[in-house]
Amino acid sequence: MTTHKEILLVKRPGEDKQIGEHLFEVVERETPSAGDNQILIKQTYMSLDPAMLGWMAEDRESYIPPVELGEVMRASGVGKVIDSNHPDFAEGDLVMGMMGWREYLVSDGKGLNKLQPGINEQTALCIFGLPGLTATQGLLNIGKPNTGETLIVTGAAGSVGSIVGQIAKAEGLRVIGVVGSDEKADWIVNELGFDGAINYKTDDLKSKLKALTPDRIDLFFENTGGPIQHHIFNRLNEHARIVVCGMIADYQADEPSPGPNWIPLIKKRASIQGFAMPDHLHKAGELVQQLAPYVQKGQIKYRSHVLEGLTSAMDGLNLLFEGKNTGKLMVKL
Amino acid sequence: MTTHKEILLVKRPGEDKQIGEHLFEVVERETPSAGDNQILIKQTYMSLDPAMLGWMAEDRESYIPPVELGEVMRASGVGKVIDSNHPDFAEGDLVMGMMGWREYLVSDGKGLNKLQPGINEQTALCIFGLPGLTATQGLLNIGKPNTGETLIVTGAAGSVGSIVGQIAKAEGLRVIGVVGSDEKADWIVNELGFDGAINYKTDDLKSKLKALTPDRIDLFFENTGGPIQHHIFNRLNEHARIVVCGMIADYQADEPSPGPNWIPLIKKRASIQGFAMPDHLHKAGELVQQLAPYVQKGQIKYRSHVLEGLTSAMDGLNLLFEGKNTGKLMVKL
Repeated sequence: MTTHKEILLVKRPGEDKQIGEHLFEVVERETPSAGDNQILIKQTYMSLDPAMLGWMAEDRESYIPPVELGEVMRASGVGKVIDSNHPDFAEGDLVMGMMGWREYLVSDGKGLNKLQPGINEQTALCIFGLPGLTATQGLLNIGKPNTGETLIVTGAAGSVGSIVGQIAKAEGLRVIGVVGSDEKADWIVNELGFDGAINYKTDDLKSKLKALTPDRIDLFFENTGGPIQHHIFNRLNEHARIVVCGMIADYQADEPSPGPNWIPLIKKRASIQGFAMPDHLHKAGELVQQLAPYVQKGQIKYRSHVLEGLTSAMDGLNLLFEGKNTGKLMVKL
Repeated sequence: MTTHKEILLVKRPGEDKQIGEHLFEVVERETPSAGDNQILIKQTYMSLDPAMLGWMAEDRESYIPPVELGEVMRASGVGKVIDSNHPDFAEGDLVMGMMGWREYLVSDGKGLNKLQPGINEQTALCIFGLPGLTATQGLLNIGKPNTGETLIVTGAAGSVGSIVGQIAKAEGLRVIGVVGSDEKADWIVNELGFDGAINYKTDDLKSKLKALTPDRIDLFFENTGGPIQHHIFNRLNEHARIVVCGMIADYQADEPSPGPNWIPLIKKRASIQGFAMPDHLHKAGELVQQLAPYVQKGQIKYRSHVLEGLTSAMDGLNLLFEGKNTGKLMVKL
């Protein structure tokens, strides 16, 4: 019998909201075999995402149920089919889907997508995985950008924000990104082609924002929350749209920071729409179709931040909440 | 020569935000005559509305320009045509439109609507004037209510809120109103048929809100702002819609109170839409068509709060900001 590692969530984050090895248990499990109409998958890359904090918490208010204690931690990933009794999959196929924090798994193929030829695992997780689909749904289908408008995106060097900004540039918008380091600012402007960057940790937010948005702001893609939200809210144009995708600055706060007063919503007849991808994954195929042309034209660059080995995930999650990851965070197994 | 009274805005509200006679000048002006294609109108009822505070302030951010100093104060009203050289109007017609704080005016008829037969001046101002059109646009066209949903409306005994709640009841929603006195609570429940009322000044907001919205809140029509906004925000259902029509609790604040953190927008995939009627007045005719059936079926009751004489408007505006008006505020001339 062969065994492999799996990681179980055994404790929920406490009042200190600290995340790390103390919340998990690493177990050795017997590697299963593929039964009829099943495939055995060796996971090769596993995605780490901000949403995981919500999955770990006892939050029955969330749109997706928490991971139960004692269960394998939830995650999406890419893996290779190493044994198949399923007519739709062959040995060697690369597949993407919800795989969890484990090295091997058996699946009946439901919810799995085969990678297109020529798409490697990192590209799959960075672009055609949750980040790209989230950017596509949030920007194109909810935000509805128009050529010539000004977009501002927070978390602009992040996995979602970087794709949002690049699609918007391809659509002819002026694009400003908010980031947490000069290195990220340099990357989004000089590598990704954003029109400007604001370092929320060091810049004077109000004056820099004003200088970079001479025509004010038509579209605000919110990934982070934090104090700049208030400044952006005061630079909205008439009929501005705000798409709320993430609030990572507040997820770990004991008392989430207050939002802006709503008077500007009336003055500018602006809208705010919160969204979450579980509502939209039934049309993942359509989203991939919307996104693919930008990728084919070379308009979407990405960078990944790769941790090594399954167990690195436990402490690695902190990189997201500290803003220390330098690209789409993932674990190579 | 005959003269009549007009009231000019001569000073903007100061830092104390106080409103009253010190901001205005009452002048006697020569009453004009109707020229070719013009009508002379004797205004009989004049509307006082929360939006007036914005019109008086030096706020170039607003969606509608302020009244210039030295100009007649802006207002909508109803009047009687007492002389007509215009083919579309006859002596004795009742007309509604923007008339300003004055007893007489001459008009070329643009922007004026004749009252339907059987509609008196108070009904016109209370239902088919701005309040009814605002309620119709905000509730039916933006909020899109569905039978069986729960609506909460703030300023529920106000000119807009009372119509919002009654239309929603007619559409089969559970309707809860937020008001500032027990007398208003009694009126909306026992006269207008709301399912419940919360007195924001005396009730325990959180527990009362929970008790009155067992199925949570699908639709929130916001007229006031204030602390209950935060409690409502925490009782939203999935895919809840918030329509922001007014924030009267904050218009006079030095520092508008903070809004709620946006995390619930993501968890509930909820939306917030600010709106203002100048965007929608080009379709006033359609809005009247949408509203008329409810009125014809007797589903919309109203009450008015009538002040006497043009000069009562100057101090009368304070009733709105103190929540002391007991119905649609208007001045009988």
